[in-house]
Amino acid sequence: MRSFRKRLGEAARRNESWLCVGLDPDPAKLPEPLRSLPPLEAVERFLREIVEATRDLVCAYKPNSAFYEALGPEGFSLLRRLIRGIVPEEIPVILDAKRGDIASTARKYAEAAFEGLGADAVTVNPFLGFDAVEPFLRYEGRGVFLLCRTSNPGARDVQDLPCGGKPLYQYIAERAVEWRTRHPEGGELGLVVGATYPEEVARVREIVEDEMLLLVPGVGAQGGDLEKAVRAAANSRGENALVVAARSVLYASPQDDFAEAARREAERLRLALQSALGAE
Amino acid sequence: MRSFRKRLGEAARRNESWLCVGLDPDPAKLPEPLRSLPPLEAVERFLREIVEATRDLVCAYKPNSAFYEALGPEGFSLLRRLIRGIVPEEIPVILDAKRGDIASTARKYAEAAFEGLGADAVTVNPFLGFDAVEPFLRYEGRGVFLLCRTSNPGARDVQDLPCGGKPLYQYIAERAVEWRTRHPEGGELGLVVGATYPEEVARVREIVEDEMLLLVPGVGAQGGDLEKAVRAAANSRGENALVVAARSVLYASPQDDFAEAARREAERLRLALQSALGAE
Repeated sequence: MRSFRKRLGEAARRNESWLCVGLDPDPAKLPEPLRSLPPLEAVERFLREIVEATRDLVCAYKPNSAFYEALGPEGFSLLRRLIRGIVPEEIPVILDAKRGDIASTARKYAEAAFEGLGADAVTVNPFLGFDAVEPFLRYEGRGVFLLCRTSNPGARDVQDLPCGGKPLYQYIAERAVEWRTRHPEGGELGLVVGATYPEEVARVREIVEDEMLLLVPGVGAQGGDLEKAVRAAANSRGENALVVAARSVLYASPQDDFAEAARREAERLRLALQSALGAE
Repeated sequence: MRSFRKRLGEAARRNESWLCVGLDPDPAKLPEPLRSLPPLEAVERFLREIVEATRDLVCAYKPNSAFYEALGPEGFSLLRRLIRGIVPEEIPVILDAKRGDIASTARKYAEAAFEGLGADAVTVNPFLGFDAVEPFLRYEGRGVFLLCRTSNPGARDVQDLPCGGKPLYQYIAERAVEWRTRHPEGGELGLVVGATYPEEVARVREIVEDEMLLLVPGVGAQGGDLEKAVRAAANSRGENALVVAARSVLYASPQDDFAEAARREAERLRLALQSALGAE
């Protein structure tokens, strides 16, 4: 399998976009016209139309596992169908699962994400240390995004704690630089840094230098400023920062025109990203 | 719903046991006689026999979500069947999922665990802070076990970092004491502390005092010393410490007698726990 990095770069160049759309379907928020359908059917149709409307505007899609798990075993089947069939093959899928467990269990999570569901990359929690991350990194050609500084208000409870003279998230970024090179034949290690904290994002980019991929959620519904976030996250060539929007794209309109509205919002974000990066 | 704490205490008293058996089925490790069956069927039969053979010896069961996710959507169905049907109603089930995500997503994970799967308690990762834990705590009558000091070698990479003059895991234990009281009408907050680090376990018990429940994995295959671990984890009345064994019970015999062998090992562990606690 060609590397995640290459496949992502190709999609970004083809669509001239570093926008990643989060596919987090909530039955309670679906557009009005879909609500008369059975929930699973409504969600699947919603996802198909959103992907069809945005596939030439994104570098990747990011489904969050929680929204599928909440739909029960059939939701898990839908997640597999989404990754293996609904999303076009040339667009990488990042499974946002934030898994973290001891090595023997992490191997099972990696198997579920990469072999079962067919994800191209997965998000992982660093709290258990390197041996919990390694089983994911052993998969050649895949991507692993380690949580560093998340986009939620509570991020500061733990991630900002001063650890040996610096906030914990900076320590995680330093470890990631080191862990990234331990499996040269394995997957690509990147970091998750929330758009809601542009100063912290800039500090992380400084620590990890140009090569590392940063996944930047929190634009849109979570209130992160897109321009500030992407300028802070991109490297010196205006690359390697995937900016994620989910709710603002998915629920751009509650009516029949939801797919067109999603397309308009994705296009707006894509152009704003281009402009922010070009204006540097 | 009666509180998780009460239901757990009743099961512990009824079976005179603080042993919690981890239900982590790996198709590659199943007893020889089951291997000729289709994997899903083999796993289900294995779980039914293990539960039947140990149900009067445990205070709780702890399935780890990864092992079911690795079996695909059908594995997810089996997990629901296990929790809702295979385990007797009077024995609480702790879903070991180690979830951690921003609040709006954590609500979906809580819905999946408590409403969908029907778990009595769930394990949660503290890295994202309190707002990622709160949606789980809002469920009245359920339990939430926050990771504090895990049982794996890599635990020290992050959890031992000196944060404001003390290791991070101690800081988490202090926060848990505070977070536990924020939702008096909600669920019960406990901590996960690995049996492989008895000194750290003792320090955590000291911080959280008598009332908090500690979930202690790592006995058996992971090499934790049962006596040391349970003495360190139990409170001054010899209670509130759930000691978890998984592989050493599940795979006690690779032959036809696997269920009897699992029962013998569970009984041995139960008596060792009684003796360690009684000898204090």
